[in-house]
Amino acid sequence: MTPRVNIITVAVADLKKSLAFYRDALGWPAWWPDKENEDSTDHAAFKLENGLSFVLYPRESMAREAGQPESRPNSAEFSLTQIVPHKVDVDDLIARAEAGGAEILSRPHDQPWGYSARFKDLDGHVWEIMWQPSDVN
Amino acid sequence: MTPRVNIITVAVADLKKSLAFYRDALGWPAWWPDKENEDSTDHAAFKLENGLSFVLYPRESMAREAGQPESRPNSAEFSLTQIVPHKVDVDDLIARAEAGGAEILSRPHDQPWGYSARFKDLDGHVWEIMWQPSDVN
Repeated sequence: MTPRVNIITVAVADLKKSLAFYRDALGWPAWWPDKENEDSTDHAAFKLENGLSFVLYPRESMAREAGQPESRPNSAEFSLTQIVPHKVDVDDLIARAEAGGAEILSRPHDQPWGYSARFKDLDGHVWEIMWQPSDVN
Repeated sequence: MTPRVNIITVAVADLKKSLAFYRDALGWPAWWPDKENEDSTDHAAFKLENGLSFVLYPRESMAREAGQPESRPNSAEFSLTQIVPHKVDVDDLIARAEAGGAEILSRPHDQPWGYSARFKDLDGHVWEIMWQPSDVN
């Protein structure tokens, strides 16, 4: 059986704020909540490329389902990397993230293997945005 | 620009043990370390379906790169869901995970929308294994 991931779920402190960050600041199309359910606060969901879904879920619900009493934020549990098709996309995405309230961990800079930058979203989740010259996306 | 995730990186306390869990217990093919570099301890990487990579990375390195002094494990930061093609795959994967040392959070059980189970890997990262009757994978 081929290993796969279909859904990435991340903890958020304030669903509406975090939804606004991804939907309005980064410009991701949300499929939940839809227009008829704008006030839904149980979760938010985005369809990414290749059949992957990205879900925002309240921190206390995550803790309860993980069987632990509390959830002290930790930015070092995981990180997500997005490879972008053009070098300028790194600059663009970091500018959008910063305007949306993200903390920039490293500004866009050349690496031996390409061009990249890193930020923390509103809940401290680390994203790396990367462009590689050999990438053909 | 279509949102996407290309790499999921997760913190591990003991790279060799966590590599053994995913490679030997779950049966995922690792592309790093390869046979010539079996003792490499900087990271481990797996290719998943649809161009996604899954990387195991030392917890202290994650903390340093996230700009925080320490990393107290928290199982409620994120979770990963794998949708499997057959109901029996849920049972199979959970049995493999448990044999490999995972903590079972919920045993395989019927849900209104399918059949699922959840476990924590050796580092406390939560996985949900799900089968849905309407899934055509």
